[in-house]
Amino acid sequence: MEHLYSDRVKQLKASEIREILKLTQQPDIISFAGGLPAPELFPIEEMKVVTQKVLSEMGQEALQYSTTEGYDPLRTKIAKRLLNVGIEANKDDILITNGSQQGLDFTGKIFLNPNDVVLCESPSYLGAINAFKAYECGFKEIQTDNEGMVLSHLEEVINHTPNAKFIYVIPDFQNPSGRTWSEARRKGLVAIANKYNLVIIEDNPYGELRFEGEMIGSIKSFDTEGRVVYLGTFSKTFSPGLRIGWVLASPNVLNKYIVVKQGADLQSSSISQRELNQFLEMYDFDAHIANIKKVYKTRRDLMIETIKSEFPKEAEFEIPSGGLFAWVKLPNHVNTKEVLVKAVENKVAFVPGGSFFPNGGQENFMRLNFSNMPEEKIVEGITRLGKILKDVI
Amino acid sequence: MEHLYSDRVKQLKASEIREILKLTQQPDIISFAGGLPAPELFPIEEMKVVTQKVLSEMGQEALQYSTTEGYDPLRTKIAKRLLNVGIEANKDDILITNGSQQGLDFTGKIFLNPNDVVLCESPSYLGAINAFKAYECGFKEIQTDNEGMVLSHLEEVINHTPNAKFIYVIPDFQNPSGRTWSEARRKGLVAIANKYNLVIIEDNPYGELRFEGEMIGSIKSFDTEGRVVYLGTFSKTFSPGLRIGWVLASPNVLNKYIVVKQGADLQSSSISQRELNQFLEMYDFDAHIANIKKVYKTRRDLMIETIKSEFPKEAEFEIPSGGLFAWVKLPNHVNTKEVLVKAVENKVAFVPGGSFFPNGGQENFMRLNFSNMPEEKIVEGITRLGKILKDVI
Repeated sequence: MEHLYSDRVKQLKASEIREILKLTQQPDIISFAGGLPAPELFPIEEMKVVTQKVLSEMGQEALQYSTTEGYDPLRTKIAKRLLNVGIEANKDDILITNGSQQGLDFTGKIFLNPNDVVLCESPSYLGAINAFKAYECGFKEIQTDNEGMVLSHLEEVINHTPNAKFIYVIPDFQNPSGRTWSEARRKGLVAIANKYNLVIIEDNPYGELRFEGEMIGSIKSFDTEGRVVYLGTFSKTFSPGLRIGWVLASPNVLNKYIVVKQGADLQSSSISQRELNQFLEMYDFDAHIANIKKVYKTRRDLMIETIKSEFPKEAEFEIPSGGLFAWVKLPNHVNTKEVLVKAVENKVAFVPGGSFFPNGGQENFMRLNFSNMPEEKIVEGITRLGKILKDVI
Repeated sequence: MEHLYSDRVKQLKASEIREILKLTQQPDIISFAGGLPAPELFPIEEMKVVTQKVLSEMGQEALQYSTTEGYDPLRTKIAKRLLNVGIEANKDDILITNGSQQGLDFTGKIFLNPNDVVLCESPSYLGAINAFKAYECGFKEIQTDNEGMVLSHLEEVINHTPNAKFIYVIPDFQNPSGRTWSEARRKGLVAIANKYNLVIIEDNPYGELRFEGEMIGSIKSFDTEGRVVYLGTFSKTFSPGLRIGWVLASPNVLNKYIVVKQGADLQSSSISQRELNQFLEMYDFDAHIANIKKVYKTRRDLMIETIKSEFPKEAEFEIPSGGLFAWVKLPNHVNTKEVLVKAVENKVAFVPGGSFFPNGGQENFMRLNFSNMPEEKIVEGITRLGKILKDVI
């Protein structure tokens, strides 16, 4: 039946590292591979309270079909919280999705014809690359430095790319690089999108997890023409298991996301939206996030410190000021896919950086997650990795 | 920014009846429009027990990311239950989705190129038509009678449709017609799919809600070449608010659904899957379904009885032996969209049948849901509709 598959699916390949990464689910492995939050910080007792309250007070509604757009009280609370990143919005600007991954898929569906081009940071988020690829697009990678995209390079690429549709960016504690855009670059990006009539997709799953320094306004907050689509999620600040994220966009654009959501799965979970809303009403969400940041900052510090002492001196890295990931550059001749094989033999795992470059060709990076492992395992795992790296360099 | 949208989204139009149907959410309206289960039958007290148990015993796991394929104990239970419809399966044949609507969307994504053709029953499920349309396909409607598709017509259409990809059917208590396929037609359909090398999509959301007569084996149970994809859901037997359905397919095909699921939203809710699994472990699911059937049968009987006494004699209908819907045919000159406008003025609603014919042109049908309204409202609502119909005929 191979010939019956659509062209878009025929060109999708299973990830070559997926099989190796499956090994990382063994209980005795020290894994820096996933993007998993620390499970010991999940508000389990609070969830027990809110699930009972929701079922007691609105059980029938919570188990029934509901609107595609999402639960209004939750949409209202999300809109209010967006003031934290400089966005003035109300509930009607927001669609609830199954995590921000679903927002990425819908973005591909809404904007991409085959052979259209996505402009993205080099490197960029693997899950976004895969979501967009399903719509048979190409990618042009834009050079980045520690302030974000190099805008002169972006403009040069746009001038040679007539079928560019949107610019996809993760401006806060980027996955995988950990970098954060400066305010000047954010404003500059909006000016370029306005000039060339492009859409900006601002993906911000980690923005609330800032360990130090001042919050920088979201790119959406500088949007003057309604051309920024903003994707958010509760996966890193509350629970990824609930699958609740959102899309914020100007009315005409959001309307496309709503129509697509209806065809895709009708709506997100009625009960999970009400439970999350109840949590936000009953508990101090900022205090909960502050607690997460405290733990992750400790883990980041420990990981960076251990990298400094245990990795070979050729390893280059920056210190991420938030988020979940550290990103390490090794000499060009090092292939981190081969390093991963040795690492897994030594019961430690990470994600080789090659997958984060949609056009390939850069195999000398590694992405290290610091949020999911307890302190002693961070030291032990990084130390093991350091030994392996010293062998291959 | 209109020109930036993909072709697939440009051709999607908002439903013309959606605005009218929004009015049906007023609390004082008698609505036969939705496909909503009876909320008073939701197992709310049992859900209170299972949510506490899941959070107490596996809270961290329930709130964390999990595998794309779904929660293994739940997949195992689904596989076992499929013996009821004659399918021998194990957990690895099953992918958990957000309701069966997500299975429909993935089906379009996996099989349809622009201008490919879906072969479907005439009429067919509105939500499936919309999900497939997003992939820029065409439809050919196959004639149906009270045994299912007219297979001679199907074969004739296949012979003139080189770009047909799959045959989409709802063989049990079809939405909207309420009809059920005979065993002979099911076997005949498989033979035709084998002969012409086509895929069959068997959508079975209502099969467990049979009020009378013997269960007929699923089309999948007659599949000899692994070319039937079977979609199931807990939305009608447990709760639609949880968004849990599944896809069953042969290994190569299921693998495509898994890859697509990963790009679309990574996974379905970790916690909802575990709660449902806990419910199936602790409670008698068959007894729960028996209770639903008892209530729906009473409502069906009452609706049919009231149609008989209150609708004009020109109204034609069959008696569905299960499911959620009655389907009424009116004389050709009656446009049920116009009837709906008058009905909503009289605080009663239904879905005009035109939307269930993907190629249009048949406006003289109405779909009436009997599961969601209590007995007295069924009598009152059908009586009001009868008066309106007598006026227009």
